[in-house]
Amino acid sequence: MIQRPRGTRDFSPAEMAKRRKVEQAMRDACARFGFGEVATPTFEHSELFTLRSGQSVIDEMYVFKDKGNREMALRPEITASVIRFFVNELSNYPKPLKLYYLGNCFRYENPQSGRFREFFQLGAELIGAKNPETDAEVIALAVSSIRAAGLENIVVRVGHIGILKSLVNDQINDKTVAAEVLRMLDKEDFDAMGEMFDAKALPRSLFDKITTLAEIKGDIEVLDNVEKSDATDYLKEVFSVLKLYGIDDCQVDLGIVRGLDYYTGMVFEIDAPKLGAEKQVMGGGSYTLSELFGGEPVFSTGFAIGIDRVILAIEAENPIQPAPALDAYVVPASEAMRKYAFGIVARLRSQGLRADVDLMRRSMSKNLKYAAATGCRFAVIVGEKEMAKRSVTIRDMKSGKQTLVLADEVGNEIKGNSSPN
Amino acid sequence: MIQRPRGTRDFSPAEMAKRRKVEQAMRDACARFGFGEVATPTFEHSELFTLRSGQSVIDEMYVFKDKGNREMALRPEITASVIRFFVNELSNYPKPLKLYYLGNCFRYENPQSGRFREFFQLGAELIGAKNPETDAEVIALAVSSIRAAGLENIVVRVGHIGILKSLVNDQINDKTVAAEVLRMLDKEDFDAMGEMFDAKALPRSLFDKITTLAEIKGDIEVLDNVEKSDATDYLKEVFSVLKLYGIDDCQVDLGIVRGLDYYTGMVFEIDAPKLGAEKQVMGGGSYTLSELFGGEPVFSTGFAIGIDRVILAIEAENPIQPAPALDAYVVPASEAMRKYAFGIVARLRSQGLRADVDLMRRSMSKNLKYAAATGCRFAVIVGEKEMAKRSVTIRDMKSGKQTLVLADEVGNEIKGNSSPN
Repeated sequence: MIQRPRGTRDFSPAEMAKRRKVEQAMRDACARFGFGEVATPTFEHSELFTLRSGQSVIDEMYVFKDKGNREMALRPEITASVIRFFVNELSNYPKPLKLYYLGNCFRYENPQSGRFREFFQLGAELIGAKNPETDAEVIALAVSSIRAAGLENIVVRVGHIGILKSLVNDQINDKTVAAEVLRMLDKEDFDAMGEMFDAKALPRSLFDKITTLAEIKGDIEVLDNVEKSDATDYLKEVFSVLKLYGIDDCQVDLGIVRGLDYYTGMVFEIDAPKLGAEKQVMGGGSYTLSELFGGEPVFSTGFAIGIDRVILAIEAENPIQPAPALDAYVVPASEAMRKYAFGIVARLRSQGLRADVDLMRRSMSKNLKYAAATGCRFAVIVGEKEMAKRSVTIRDMKSGKQTLVLADEVGNEIKGNSSPN
Repeated sequence: MIQRPRGTRDFSPAEMAKRRKVEQAMRDACARFGFGEVATPTFEHSELFTLRSGQSVIDEMYVFKDKGNREMALRPEITASVIRFFVNELSNYPKPLKLYYLGNCFRYENPQSGRFREFFQLGAELIGAKNPETDAEVIALAVSSIRAAGLENIVVRVGHIGILKSLVNDQINDKTVAAEVLRMLDKEDFDAMGEMFDAKALPRSLFDKITTLAEIKGDIEVLDNVEKSDATDYLKEVFSVLKLYGIDDCQVDLGIVRGLDYYTGMVFEIDAPKLGAEKQVMGGGSYTLSELFGGEPVFSTGFAIGIDRVILAIEAENPIQPAPALDAYVVPASEAMRKYAFGIVARLRSQGLRADVDLMRRSMSKNLKYAAATGCRFAVIVGEKEMAKRSVTIRDMKSGKQTLVLADEVGNEIKGNSSPN
């Protein structure tokens, strides 16, 4: 047997039906918010990702040389590709440009619960402006997408990278140390940060100030405990627009730092607490990236949702119930009835119903077993006596109830019995 | 500027809207035929593909070593992965197992018109049986998917690999020469085949018999000119089931050989003549592949449709018209109206409409320009006088007609004006 590559997945029809249901709900939310879908290649010049994330990302990517000896990488994320596309071809579109994507990404690390080497992200980028309205719009889309997918229990945390970052960068002159402190903050590793402060003889009062700020979390009113600044005013405006959108349960979290350098202002994350340690299902914020790829500097705000984790989180609340795969399974009661069965199934399909027909020349009892095993809603039995009256028997596979209907009316009869979903 | 990799594509919102429309139509056709969607990893152990297609496929694949020094390949096709999945995990599902997939594939060759290094396929596999009904079902699905996508002008050619293959293998003892003859037949390179016959001193009468057979094309009646065999009887039965399905415009083409060894019986191809030399949009047939991957021998019938070429072919007939991206763009007429605009856009979105709002604090005239540039259907203007009466002005962006409506009724008003698509 040939196994699939480690850390990757195969999706059965039942799993795909769930995934497509969740994806479609999120996709519809993006369309309602006026975001247009884009797609970019699955692999890119690896430089695109090292420019965004630093050389260290190479170790976490699938990298290969093409025949022209150019180094390529399977994309670890899609934001860099969207901004490359924007810089190269979309920069003249009316602003703000509102784009979303849904695609697979790859990371080369040890597989663990909810983390795979090939995984799926839905993300959005609002390009061309940064103000409280654009940031609120992007937060609202992230929240609405996740809620539309069916996840109820979420925590939306919104912060501002400027507050902690400016404090750290103003007060710590050694840029390497400052960057390391921010990295530790991102990981909430205060112990290691304390040791760093001791080793570098940085003032304990600064450590206390930083950790106090990083732990400011709660309703918007917690900002009243923080020194007023452009950043706190900005956050208050974002929250007031969110309220106009009907989203009034976001939390402030000044401890959100996010790993990457190019975030400039508002940052936000969404957790699904039911997932435990791996609870974060979304991360985003406002950033500038286009100038790294040779474009004009342009403000953007975006996010990426981990679809795999969202599905895990929804299923931790309630199993996702896709519609039954099949409306009708047409069974000829005898060899002579076979030709009518094909006509009936073709008619049902042309009426938009999902219908199947015996293709195995099976006995009636085996056919009814197959109908039950595939979970179809109705068996349509084509018998000689009934066909003499241009009729067939419809059997409701759940209740077992049988009804005689005109062969021409099978489709309407089944449509009249609305699907349980 | 960082360029995208050669031979790959970025898709703009307008292009994606077309692609998704075509994909959704094909996906719906698969569901109507009772096929369930599966997905497999984007890369596989390269052995999977060399087992199916021979070592030579290595040169046409993106191959890389993972950190465990295992050789991986970006998938050049998806059938091998689906059958691997079937052998490893789905072999106990009720038969016939009807699966479809929609995904990206990769080939490493020079880009040319309609052929890209990353391209998209929709394919289906019916696993677990081979008889005229299963083959007709798969042909009917291929035809219905392509027609559902909107392509009108197609030629469906159906053949049987057994007829030519058994003649060649029976009459040419040297297996290498026989394989080479079949390869030349696949390419319809009769000149090279003639030279081969001369070089190997094979009888000219055999050459004539083979080329005559290979050129038998036309309505089902052309089979009356061919020596009767199991294969010709089988093909006649396939055509009679297709007729019951309402598909009566298929052609016989005994010249279809297809490149790969594992095809066993019926083979078929669909062309879009408007595409010229690169006109083939689909290829398929019945095959056995599971035993190559360590499973029990199981008959299957499948096909793969090239989505990129189908889209090219549809657009050669009629431009694909996706629905307008936006139903409404909400414009506050003054700073004070901004807060109402957010409430209105949130309400429209919650009613399922695709709606946007000024996020740039622009002037009225700039906002109306933006609304026109993004191609939205209605501008919703929130003015002070009107809001005093809880009303707003709706402007039809196509006709320019303006209507005063209650703010609470904007959604219903827009829904009443059905979309042009």
